[in-house]
Amino acid sequence: MRRIYIISGPAGVGKSTTSKRLAEQFEHSAYIEGDVINHMVVGGYLPPWESEESLALVWENIADLSVNFVNSDKDVIIDYVAFPSDIEKLSEKVHSQLKQVEIIYVVLWVDRTELLRRDALRIKEHQMGDRCLALVEEFERKGLSERFLYDTTNLKETNLNEILWNIRENSRFVY
Amino acid sequence: MRRIYIISGPAGVGKSTTSKRLAEQFEHSAYIEGDVINHMVVGGYLPPWESEESLALVWENIADLSVNFVNSDKDVIIDYVAFPSDIEKLSEKVHSQLKQVEIIYVVLWVDRTELLRRDALRIKEHQMGDRCLALVEEFERKGLSERFLYDTTNLKETNLNEILWNIRENSRFVY
Repeated sequence: MRRIYIISGPAGVGKSTTSKRLAEQFEHSAYIEGDVINHMVVGGYLPPWESEESLALVWENIADLSVNFVNSDKDVIIDYVAFPSDIEKLSEKVHSQLKQVEIIYVVLWVDRTELLRRDALRIKEHQMGDRCLALVEEFERKGLSERFLYDTTNLKETNLNEILWNIRENSRFVY
Repeated sequence: MRRIYIISGPAGVGKSTTSKRLAEQFEHSAYIEGDVINHMVVGGYLPPWESEESLALVWENIADLSVNFVNSDKDVIIDYVAFPSDIEKLSEKVHSQLKQVEIIYVVLWVDRTELLRRDALRIKEHQMGDRCLALVEEFERKGLSERFLYDTTNLKETNLNEILWNIRENSRFVY
């Protein structure tokens, strides 16, 4: 059975690195970067965290692409800041079009100190400073079942393979 | 009525510049870069010019995104090497889901000398040399109604506004 993996979490936790490497592990896969889908809108762009319409549109696009990829027999990896309410809508839309598919929802996590430490290691133009923490607080505020959280604070980057293995094999991430 | 513009043509004719500037002219618009959609496939990637399945998938994805953007009241600009057979399938898929929409198909063109001259102006890593001409020949081979061709050989880059105006206003590009 094909799977749709959503790799979520606040900015700076390693969504992109993890997602790309995960996509490379499958024989047939597709990698959807939510930010890229979001920024296809040019004229009249409103960020999805300020506009419900933008948010709905970006998830509709992600869902349709995912369905096409699964229909074309690929595992799908979605790299985006996704809250439980987003996954609920995605799941509904996907299951209305596909009978056989499993959704895996992982919210990568590192503690605040580690998030700020990693941010400081970036080149100046890419540093986000305190803005890193705003998304952490949003995840905490919106309530998230513990089982989807994956705290990687104490895992070094060399443990990426362990992280990938867990994402693929640990049943607690099955939505 | 919303419109879907497909800006096609061989590599090096100015598809990206033209498409991006066109997208910026509309109050509500979306810009779809075909190459980006194509490269979402990671594991098992086959280029669409070598695999019918890849070609069908990339156009299915482009069509679904276009429908969502039009439903969200945006004009859509597609930047991709698109042959008449691709447009036919896109048109079918789009019209089966949308009643009110107009498709505009423009194949930008410059003569071979100009194509090679522009290519030589690029930084070395981006130069394509004779490969520029391969796509020119493919367009010629596949047969293309004259009316969709837009020869911009004698237009300077400062004439971009004239090009954009023609794409928007000249009825010969309506598919």
